[in-house]
Amino acid sequence: MTDTQHYYIGLDGGGTRCRARIADTQGNTLGEAVSGSANVFQNAKQAWQSVQSAISDANQQAGLSSSELTQAIIVAGLAGAEVNSCASEFLSLVQGFQHFTLLTDAQIACLGAHNGQDGAIYIVGTGAIGIAFESGHWRRVSGWGFPLDDIGSGAWLGQQAVRAALRAHDGVTPASDMTNQVWDHFNHSSENLLTWSGSANSGDYGQFSPLVTRAYKAGDPVALNIVQQQLDYLSEQMNSLVTNDLSLSLMGGLSDWIAPLLPMQLQNRLTPSQSDALTGALRYAQRGIKP
Amino acid sequence: MTDTQHYYIGLDGGGTRCRARIADTQGNTLGEAVSGSANVFQNAKQAWQSVQSAISDANQQAGLSSSELTQAIIVAGLAGAEVNSCASEFLSLVQGFQHFTLLTDAQIACLGAHNGQDGAIYIVGTGAIGIAFESGHWRRVSGWGFPLDDIGSGAWLGQQAVRAALRAHDGVTPASDMTNQVWDHFNHSSENLLTWSGSANSGDYGQFSPLVTRAYKAGDPVALNIVQQQLDYLSEQMNSLVTNDLSLSLMGGLSDWIAPLLPMQLQNRLTPSQSDALTGALRYAQRGIKP
Repeated sequence: MTDTQHYYIGLDGGGTRCRARIADTQGNTLGEAVSGSANVFQNAKQAWQSVQSAISDANQQAGLSSSELTQAIIVAGLAGAEVNSCASEFLSLVQGFQHFTLLTDAQIACLGAHNGQDGAIYIVGTGAIGIAFESGHWRRVSGWGFPLDDIGSGAWLGQQAVRAALRAHDGVTPASDMTNQVWDHFNHSSENLLTWSGSANSGDYGQFSPLVTRAYKAGDPVALNIVQQQLDYLSEQMNSLVTNDLSLSLMGGLSDWIAPLLPMQLQNRLTPSQSDALTGALRYAQRGIKP
Repeated sequence: MTDTQHYYIGLDGGGTRCRARIADTQGNTLGEAVSGSANVFQNAKQAWQSVQSAISDANQQAGLSSSELTQAIIVAGLAGAEVNSCASEFLSLVQGFQHFTLLTDAQIACLGAHNGQDGAIYIVGTGAIGIAFESGHWRRVSGWGFPLDDIGSGAWLGQQAVRAALRAHDGVTPASDMTNQVWDHFNHSSENLLTWSGSANSGDYGQFSPLVTRAYKAGDPVALNIVQQQLDYLSEQMNSLVTNDLSLSLMGGLSDWIAPLLPMQLQNRLTPSQSDALTGALRYAQRGIKP
């Protein structure tokens, strides 16, 4: 171990857990650990505790001294870090480290997908968000939260199915197998549907997303229409994100569904994700080193 | 006063107040009164108390005996009555009257607009709902509540403005005067917008509706696009409602805005509202009489 040896810590935190990995200059993993919730929007204090706990456990595995730890270059990608006040609150708690960079979980996912190089990701699961990293700058599209935003997401897909069922119920548009299946779910009771919708969140709406994709494959006309809207919207968003020939990786539960349906000029941009978010955080830490 | 003299009571109830009017066979108003909240979805018990109170006060004015009152033919149009379980709960409380018909506030508004005759109304305010009364049968479109439904309403119009502002912020579409004004409202802070949207209700979104209509008049391209979607959606809904040459009355805070923009074949159907909801309830009561 020489004076020029540096250590890097990558952190990947969300609502359920926080993962930490310590690596040396050569990129060898020295220690890894998992702790609890680290969403700075939900609870900045708890996020900081989880981060500390994960670092401490990973460090024990790595066998580094506390002075070596304080010199480590840390990059954390934590859910909720896009909310400035929460990011500030979290960073005000951070102490004991000279280099601590806070990104969002989506940003380190983007760095992981392209191994720290320029590139973009679009995550289409229950929500939808696009992130691009280019020449050291970040761009982001959508991901402002359902039902206001995240159009084209699984939650949005489900919402369109329920809306279509209501329109068919009202006699505005013809019913289809898909709209009938939505009503089956609510036992053909508009009151059941209304009661449900009064408190339904994005996950509740997202549960109807498989129904739409199945109906699409079966040629259901209402589903065909909804999916076309989804593709139009997502294509517009992706096109605005991947300027200058940026590569694009799709992620999230609906990525396999979306990929083959995209316009060819977008499909030609698609590259498989190269590594995970934790690796992305470490790549970013290595970029940032000024020895 | 003869044995064949009948009395009619009309009731119009919503979240803030309940109005009652007693009329005789000739349609003369004998008594009127106002009481408190009578929304059966919010509170069926309170709705029944308000109904009783309004009837009692109107009856005192009319000077009818309690036996005459129990023979009165009552039609109540109360908000929330479209929810079957709430309507049942309310009706289980009703006692002391031989004839008590429960409709929704929108239904008696429709009866009022066409003086008890066949016709349709479309209410476009913060929400949006269409009701038709034809050959003794009711039809209803939309009005399933924002943000799931009530597309084309003032709340929806405001939501589209905020969405457009987000898209402009993300660089997906060009900014316009209108999207800039939305950001002015949030002091150009995406965090302010996110915090607001976390708890924004239909009324909060509806506050942006005048901004859209002003921008439309000024030729703002983003507003033009949103309003065109609004007109397409509302026209489709209205066309499905007014089959068989039914007349249509527009109501609600956005009716004056919508009316001149509708397609001509819908504009030709438009008739001014002839009377109020309370009169509609009384007309329905008079129709229902079997002396």
